[in-house]
Amino acid sequence: MAEKIRIGVLGASGYTGADLVRLGVRHPAIEIALLTANSHAGKPMDAVFPHFAFVDLPDLVTVEEADWSAVDAVFCGLPHGTTQEIISDLLARHPHIKVIDMSADFRLRDPDTYATWYGHEHRALGLQGEAVYGLTEHYATAIASARLVACPGCYPTASLLALLPIVGAGLVAADDIVIDAKSGVTGAGRGLKQNTLFSEAGEGLSPYSIAKHRHAPEIEQEISKAAGKTVYVNFTPHLIPMSRGELCTSYVRMVPGTSADDLRACLADAYQKAPFVHVARPGVVPQTQNVRGSNYVQIGVFADRIPGRAIVVSVLDNLVKGSAGQALQNFNLMFGLPETTGLEQLALFP
Amino acid sequence: MAEKIRIGVLGASGYTGADLVRLGVRHPAIEIALLTANSHAGKPMDAVFPHFAFVDLPDLVTVEEADWSAVDAVFCGLPHGTTQEIISDLLARHPHIKVIDMSADFRLRDPDTYATWYGHEHRALGLQGEAVYGLTEHYATAIASARLVACPGCYPTASLLALLPIVGAGLVAADDIVIDAKSGVTGAGRGLKQNTLFSEAGEGLSPYSIAKHRHAPEIEQEISKAAGKTVYVNFTPHLIPMSRGELCTSYVRMVPGTSADDLRACLADAYQKAPFVHVARPGVVPQTQNVRGSNYVQIGVFADRIPGRAIVVSVLDNLVKGSAGQALQNFNLMFGLPETTGLEQLALFP
Amino acid sequence: MAEKIRIGVLGASGYTGADLVRLGVRHPAIEIALLTANSHAGKPMDAVFPHFAFVDLPDLVTVEEADWSAVDAVFCGLPHGTTQEIISDLLARHPHIKVIDMSADFRLRDPDTYATWYGHEHRALGLQGEAVYGLTEHYATAIASARLVACPGCYPTASLLALLPIVGAGLVAADDIVIDAKSGVTGAGRGLKQNTLFSEAGEGLSPYSIAKHRHAPEIEQEISKAAGKTVYVNFTPHLIPMSRGELCTSYVRMVPGTSADDLRACLADAYQKAPFVHVARPGVVPQTQNVRGSNYVQIGVFADRIPGRAIVVSVLDNLVKGSAGQALQNFNLMFGLPETTGLEQLALFP
Amino acid sequence: MAEKIRIGVLGASGYTGADLVRLGVRHPAIEIALLTANSHAGKPMDAVFPHFAFVDLPDLVTVEEADWSAVDAVFCGLPHGTTQEIISDLLARHPHIKVIDMSADFRLRDPDTYATWYGHEHRALGLQGEAVYGLTEHYATAIASARLVACPGCYPTASLLALLPIVGAGLVAADDIVIDAKSGVTGAGRGLKQNTLFSEAGEGLSPYSIAKHRHAPEIEQEISKAAGKTVYVNFTPHLIPMSRGELCTSYVRMVPGTSADDLRACLADAYQKAPFVHVARPGVVPQTQNVRGSNYVQIGVFADRIPGRAIVVSVLDNLVKGSAGQALQNFNLMFGLPETTGLEQLALFP
Repeated sequence: MAEKIRIGVLGASGYTGADLVRLGVRHPAIEIALLTANSHAGKPMDAVFPHFAFVDLPDLVTVEEADWSAVDAVFCGLPHGTTQEIISDLLARHPHIKVIDMSADFRLRDPDTYATWYGHEHRALGLQGEAVYGLTEHYATAIASARLVACPGCYPTASLLALLPIVGAGLVAADDIVIDAKSGVTGAGRGLKQNTLFSEAGEGLSPYSIAKHRHAPEIEQEISKAAGKTVYVNFTPHLIPMSRGELCTSYVRMVPGTSADDLRACLADAYQKAPFVHVARPGVVPQTQNVRGSNYVQIGVFADRIPGRAIVVSVLDNLVKGSAGQALQNFNLMFGLPETTGLEQLALFP
Repeated sequence: MAEKIRIGVLGASGYTGADLVRLGVRHPAIEIALLTANSHAGKPMDAVFPHFAFVDLPDLVTVEEADWSAVDAVFCGLPHGTTQEIISDLLARHPHIKVIDMSADFRLRDPDTYATWYGHEHRALGLQGEAVYGLTEHYATAIASARLVACPGCYPTASLLALLPIVGAGLVAADDIVIDAKSGVTGAGRGLKQNTLFSEAGEGLSPYSIAKHRHAPEIEQEISKAAGKTVYVNFTPHLIPMSRGELCTSYVRMVPGTSADDLRACLADAYQKAPFVHVARPGVVPQTQNVRGSNYVQIGVFADRIPGRAIVVSVLDNLVKGSAGQALQNFNLMFGLPETTGLEQLALFP
Repeated sequence: MAEKIRIGVLGASGYTGADLVRLGVRHPAIEIALLTANSHAGKPMDAVFPHFAFVDLPDLVTVEEADWSAVDAVFCGLPHGTTQEIISDLLARHPHIKVIDMSADFRLRDPDTYATWYGHEHRALGLQGEAVYGLTEHYATAIASARLVACPGCYPTASLLALLPIVGAGLVAADDIVIDAKSGVTGAGRGLKQNTLFSEAGEGLSPYSIAKHRHAPEIEQEISKAAGKTVYVNFTPHLIPMSRGELCTSYVRMVPGTSADDLRACLADAYQKAPFVHVARPGVVPQTQNVRGSNYVQIGVFADRIPGRAIVVSVLDNLVKGSAGQALQNFNLMFGLPETTGLEQLALFP
Repeated sequence: MAEKIRIGVLGASGYTGADLVRLGVRHPAIEIALLTANSHAGKPMDAVFPHFAFVDLPDLVTVEEADWSAVDAVFCGLPHGTTQEIISDLLARHPHIKVIDMSADFRLRDPDTYATWYGHEHRALGLQGEAVYGLTEHYATAIASARLVACPGCYPTASLLALLPIVGAGLVAADDIVIDAKSGVTGAGRGLKQNTLFSEAGEGLSPYSIAKHRHAPEIEQEISKAAGKTVYVNFTPHLIPMSRGELCTSYVRMVPGTSADDLRACLADAYQKAPFVHVARPGVVPQTQNVRGSNYVQIGVFADRIPGRAIVVSVLDNLVKGSAGQALQNFNLMFGLPETTGLEQLALFP
């Protein structure tokens, strides 16, 4: 490879930022040129994440100190709500930089929906219109030519990959979908919260944000688009005592004459050429263990014994395909690299 | 207390048997007189479960060696399918003994359903007709005078306690219920299986027995009875990386004019005098941590943002209220003891 | 029981305070009359620990608001360093109240050692002299008549129970002891720290506070006393990915002519009448699973294949015998109750 | 790369075999040509390890069916004791094949020691003499020209990397070493054992094989060689509730005039050019989280507060540097490839 693409990672002290660095270090076309983390500025990366002690990385700086001239692309792993102005300002001054945003700031196309769910008017409306929704397998063409890609949330990625093709093909009732979602604790981030302490989250289980999780409108945005009408979905996330991994069990009502096999065939067809999305053979049950640490998604379809209903199960690693991995996959498309570059590693099992 | 009730535990080398012993040791009215475990006969109990090293217990014997004259009540924690003939023979010879069965052998009232799901004709049809379904809060009167109580499975206990009152009151559509169930690994028992090894089940998650779990017909039996018509339910269990605990997230469609608050009020009313079933205040989310090691059940009701739908969350400890604890609760009723005797301990948290 | 003893728990929002409440609720001689937690004052207890939703408890108040006239005994689960002045003031005004302190404030008899390890002069020197070290099995007589008992730390309890008899009997070299200690994450308390987040502490392991943990001087104080000379010990704690449980592997050099069997016999003799300390038969390996949630301690002795060396393994639950359970055991002695009252429950296994 | 090296993996249905496959799939110079697993012969690899569903691999065959002409190198992950005759026979018929053995069969140079610890005479004494001990950093030259490399056990790798340099330099007393070792559950393999079930191993901790673990003679073989005299070490392994990772806390007595800093400097010097062995800066505590899934080893040295003693902490992933990773590292040397080929990936954290 001639010259490497220089990247910056904003918010490198969070889990998604760190996983981007983990993958970026071994990506053959990437040079990590900039790492920001305002509350840890001045420290070496391994003071914040000691598993980076074995490689050379730039020290952490504040966003304000960042030398944007040193980067060709920027990955944002900043907390929701803080990204808009930073990206807006950055692109105004350095329009050639490509931005892959892993936050929620540019995912919702409708400004009102954004304001409703995030509690404030969007601060970069122009960019919001420009941003391409980074669900790679469904927006690849637009991503390839985008300047700003808004990577989906982990739950939307897991559920939409399972549902979009069958909703789009009209095989299931778009307005009667229940998504029971389960995520490992890294999904809550690295912030200090009592409910994510080992002794609180371990050996136990509960739903959370019932009927009010911010990933719901994102899922509905895409399901509605595929269905050609506005729909609501039941989306109920649960906190599972594991670090990585996410599983969505989606309960759907099929249109008359449709079978679970039809759903599976539809999905297999949709992802025939997708290197990271695999539709399991009949009877094979997806489990998060199969994808831990990898960019793969596995989808299984099962007939319910109740006639006319089916169950679609999808799994991914919330920090990889659910965040940093999909961000890199989009980066690859944006820079004309093979989609799988730097992302081929298999699950770490056991 | 004048004289203690002498009990035997069949299948004391399994998890439910052991939890019965754990609770029985501290039950003020119980003397543990007999412990059977055919494959470990001749051993002291602490050779099989070392946490019993600190108390005196009878050595394990085979069922064949059991001295039935030494017991007033028998708890069965034998594998499904093996209990029928043993109990049938036992009661034929010792009709005064009261039997609390924790296996699945006498739960299904319809012999055809039993044969369909368990793969063989029932071997004690007479007793099957006599057996009382041991869901304590719903069959207390019959249990109090029963000779044979068939304790429900863990999943049926968790889901039925949440659903029976609202189905029975006609507040929800009985034929449109999705039960997404999650259980800790002890639910799979102590048998050696690859998928329950620490390194296989840990840090991961998957559904299992999709659309074919044997607890489905048991749930349907009771829901149908409450609804006054035969219904099917969607019941999908998941294996969670924790040892104890079970959570059912039930998705229901309410009849017009009904609100989540109505469901909550109905449940609160139904369990007003139930010492172990608590309906959470609005906004309080049940979590399995709250009931670990205890006989308590916690139920929460949440409005879905989709009009007309609600979410009912119920938690219990699968080995206690889901098995050994409910068995003791039934035992208390059968012997005229206060329902809570020996069962008052709170959850072990953290 | 005629009248109950009214207790107060200071610091009820921490793990040791909560475990005291869990046990106290079911202690037949106890009425919980007062719960303090300054940062949560005004809340019901189940707002802080939801597993208490099923029982009636007084609301949390500040220490300043506490009505001391309503209590006969006080358990302190306050952070280290904050207890001295509160207890000092309390006893000055209410000298009849008995105090069982679970903090570190009164454990070290030597004021200089205290000042060195805790970074400030002791603020209640008079009381420090009065306090009895609450290692129940070794100070029972003094505890029974004490007004202020300083319960040992969890690590000192686990290691001293294993070592004091054999050091006291002169069977091992007191100045050549290595204690490799392992604790579950609850040992770090409920405070928000990055290293105790689920995703940080899970699936991993490390030592911490190497050669500088505050339990070292406490262990040395008692070992030195038993040895009749000042000694230092190697004490190295490790953080283990589990919530409860503690195991000390102590490596000792025996005096010539002594065997591992001699050590075991010495320990068995020392704890012959101790209801909670059990010396395992030869070949039985203690494991923390055997004592989880219980007040039991299990000790095993093993010959090393290196002549002259032995390995002593001891386990306990850090929140029970390592803290709240031992506190209650001391309380029982102080109020003339049977030592085991309210503490008989067996381990929650699995 | 011109042509790939064709490898076979014997025992591909075990954890070490599977991790070899995981790494081998992404190794740029390797083509996986043969996978054996006698009890699963005829199945596709993903029927045994579903995380391989996303790549093409040869189906499993028996050892007897193996086409040795199709391979240039063989990795053995067979159970201990079964490897000798297979390898002996294989090399007799195909002397050009290079063998990297991950079992224990060729690690002990002394046939009597082997017979004592493994319960039978060695069945391939000639090969035992030829085998090179595969501790890469200490036997690199011999490995590069070897035909048969006996990869060390996981515990010997972790402890010897920490101890050999300082013993060899005469800085510590070779006959006064205590190695308290802790391993995740994968160390026990994939066989079905009660003590490695999730509900048995989870939330608990215990030592095992005290004073009789088979890795002890292997450690002593190398320590004795470095010390120039026969020594015994105290080696006590513990089972930790995590899947991967291993940590050895080694307690050493330094020769007079030596400091912990001297030990650290000695280690840093010894591993100056070793790409996978990192000596931590003073104060940095190694943790297994830092190396999970990677081939890295991290070593830290700490002064004990007892004068003259020091504590050496070493961590690795037992399946990678402790087995499959080190095997690949040796393979790289044997085939003239850069030592780090295919092994560069960083730890999967969190």
